[in-house]
Amino acid sequence: MNYDAFFEQSLNDLKSEGNYRVFADLERHRGEFPKATNRGDAEKEVTIWCSNDYLGMGQHPTVLNAMHDAIDRVGAGAGGTRNISGTTHHHVLLERELADLHGKESALLFTSGYVSNWAALGTLAAKIPNCLVISDSLNHASMIEGIRHSKAERKIWKHNDLADLERLLAEQPLDRPKLIAFESVYSMDGDIAPIREICDLADKYNAMTYLDEVHAVGMYGPRGGGIAEREGLMDRLTVIEGTLGKAFGVMGGYIAASRDLVDFVRSFASGFIFTTALPPAVAAGACAAIKHLKTSSVERESQQAKVAKVRDRLEQIGIPHIDNPSHIIPVMVGDPVKCKFLSDVLMRDHGIYIQPINYPTVPKGTERLRITPSPVHSDADIDALLSALEDLWAQCQLQRMPMAAQ
Amino acid sequence: MNYDAFFEQSLNDLKSEGNYRVFADLERHRGEFPKATNRGDAEKEVTIWCSNDYLGMGQHPTVLNAMHDAIDRVGAGAGGTRNISGTTHHHVLLERELADLHGKESALLFTSGYVSNWAALGTLAAKIPNCLVISDSLNHASMIEGIRHSKAERKIWKHNDLADLERLLAEQPLDRPKLIAFESVYSMDGDIAPIREICDLADKYNAMTYLDEVHAVGMYGPRGGGIAEREGLMDRLTVIEGTLGKAFGVMGGYIAASRDLVDFVRSFASGFIFTTALPPAVAAGACAAIKHLKTSSVERESQQAKVAKVRDRLEQIGIPHIDNPSHIIPVMVGDPVKCKFLSDVLMRDHGIYIQPINYPTVPKGTERLRITPSPVHSDADIDALLSALEDLWAQCQLQRMPMAAQ
Repeated sequence: MNYDAFFEQSLNDLKSEGNYRVFADLERHRGEFPKATNRGDAEKEVTIWCSNDYLGMGQHPTVLNAMHDAIDRVGAGAGGTRNISGTTHHHVLLERELADLHGKESALLFTSGYVSNWAALGTLAAKIPNCLVISDSLNHASMIEGIRHSKAERKIWKHNDLADLERLLAEQPLDRPKLIAFESVYSMDGDIAPIREICDLADKYNAMTYLDEVHAVGMYGPRGGGIAEREGLMDRLTVIEGTLGKAFGVMGGYIAASRDLVDFVRSFASGFIFTTALPPAVAAGACAAIKHLKTSSVERESQQAKVAKVRDRLEQIGIPHIDNPSHIIPVMVGDPVKCKFLSDVLMRDHGIYIQPINYPTVPKGTERLRITPSPVHSDADIDALLSALEDLWAQCQLQRMPMAAQ
Repeated sequence: MNYDAFFEQSLNDLKSEGNYRVFADLERHRGEFPKATNRGDAEKEVTIWCSNDYLGMGQHPTVLNAMHDAIDRVGAGAGGTRNISGTTHHHVLLERELADLHGKESALLFTSGYVSNWAALGTLAAKIPNCLVISDSLNHASMIEGIRHSKAERKIWKHNDLADLERLLAEQPLDRPKLIAFESVYSMDGDIAPIREICDLADKYNAMTYLDEVHAVGMYGPRGGGIAEREGLMDRLTVIEGTLGKAFGVMGGYIAASRDLVDFVRSFASGFIFTTALPPAVAAGACAAIKHLKTSSVERESQQAKVAKVRDRLEQIGIPHIDNPSHIIPVMVGDPVKCKFLSDVLMRDHGIYIQPINYPTVPKGTERLRITPSPVHSDADIDALLSALEDLWAQCQLQRMPMAAQ
């Protein structure tokens, strides 16, 4: 085999489909986010409209000070796996903070949200004898890979469809171990799972529940515990999984659950055991963000106001988007080449950066511009965004929704 | 099923085998590493002897300043996946630095060394049609999981045994795609692969080579490029994989290879695509460490001198250890309960922290204390270590090697 030719051909195929990804080379400016410099071919000042730093906590002085302080006190890296000299006091404090956030006995850190899903689901489903995993059809890649990794039997239930979930549960013996895996806010469509009803079914059929709240922690609930906190359901979930890399502004993932379940994953998960621990400064920054958002609601309220404003304006000018109850606004394009083109023009002519979301992140034919308004976007930023989208939609004669009454 | 009872029973089984892990809760003191405070039940000052911050770069002012500077300039987290607003200029610069370090066209960052092996091997082996992976029997868990994930056919060759490797290669058609996966320095025994001869076989049988240098980068070769650099072999390897979390003192993993191979992994690896990028400050700190170690050899030389000194003293007093050509000194105990006991006594009575290495990190029956001398260990630290080990070996009547002539 000619390896070089194979790689080149595979990349050419991606390019001809319009699915080749070009990364924007960005430099944020502390205190001025969502502004950044695009360090690509021609340097350009841009406004970022697609970040998952949903609340701007990645720029918050409390978070940055905590990171500076940790570096000054203990240095750069953890220097080992959690077991071999890599557990620092910052990790211990952060795990306590996370357990408290979700009202659970215990929590466990991973190097990323991806790894937390992969390792926790992979370990639970593999090690619990004869476990059946019942997985929502739109679960994130990291959950799918974790379940696949476990080699446990898996059944897919139709996205957010309770009848389909019950059908799958009911056909199993009551005493067979079952794990229902799902998300609260789905990242690309922004819709929200019926958590209460899923917990009711789990109780009825003696199943465990595993809820991914990565797009909700920090942003929902009076202390930022996520949708399950907002709905008063945290105690009904077996495992709550979250990230430190989105609303908490830094990096890392975690699970929160009973002491023994967490200790079980800690003791058996390869992706937890055999990897260097997060740098203490990362743990310290995330811990500061969580603490802050437990008592401050101003960021959450401001985010919701900005989201409502962008959504209203899109309605007014008839730009097609998915209506959902979350902070994620998917503007639908439906073609990978067009989606990339719109993104390029927004960047080039308007200084607006919204990455095109193409396959495999979303199904082919549902390509989109995914907009994430945040407290740090000003009214002028919103005006500039909407005026640019309106221009583009007119210029390219793109499809409109029926206009809302003005 | 009673889930709680299952978790509790599994943990009790681990405990009765002596394989239950207790993490030391450590707080390093910047500038004073390897000293740290053990924040466990009773606070205690300890000397860390088992860190993978092999050169003390996690405390180096150049690294810490680079992290501070990045936080001041751009903030805490990257705020997105590499594709969706998370590529910052610090990532771009670091990838260039890594490509240069290994003399390759390109490099790609991952959130950890574990993820880099899992994602890169998993993607290459899955996507190259009919690929056969030939894997060294002592490869790291992350490589094994990546290969398993790919579902490609896999054959295990006897650790570092060239005849066995050739036997497996020779029985395959010359034009079948083959990937030889191995490490340079093996983490737990500290032995080193015959890289040149493996490359010769790869050439003869038209195989790709994938070399994990995580326990070598920074420490070997005139610029810290690893064993392959020291041996003048970097250009003969298809992929070199490394970590930013050991000798480079921070966190993260990477591969370096041809432009198209790297672009291929970038485009298809789930574990790369669907995860938040490293914080810019982590990238900046690692970049500073790599740059520093490209021109400074004093850390490498000092490490080697300290390793030689500890090894000589172990020989003199007959403490059994694996003799190897690397910086890793495994002191063999061969029993999990005894290994944990020795570690506990070293901590309690001598303020020396060496984590017991038990199953599954090493095979049952080969439990050990793995010692990693570094430039930051003083002669007094070495004296204290050896005197403690000598006491313990006498006190517990542990087996000795034949004494070296004194």
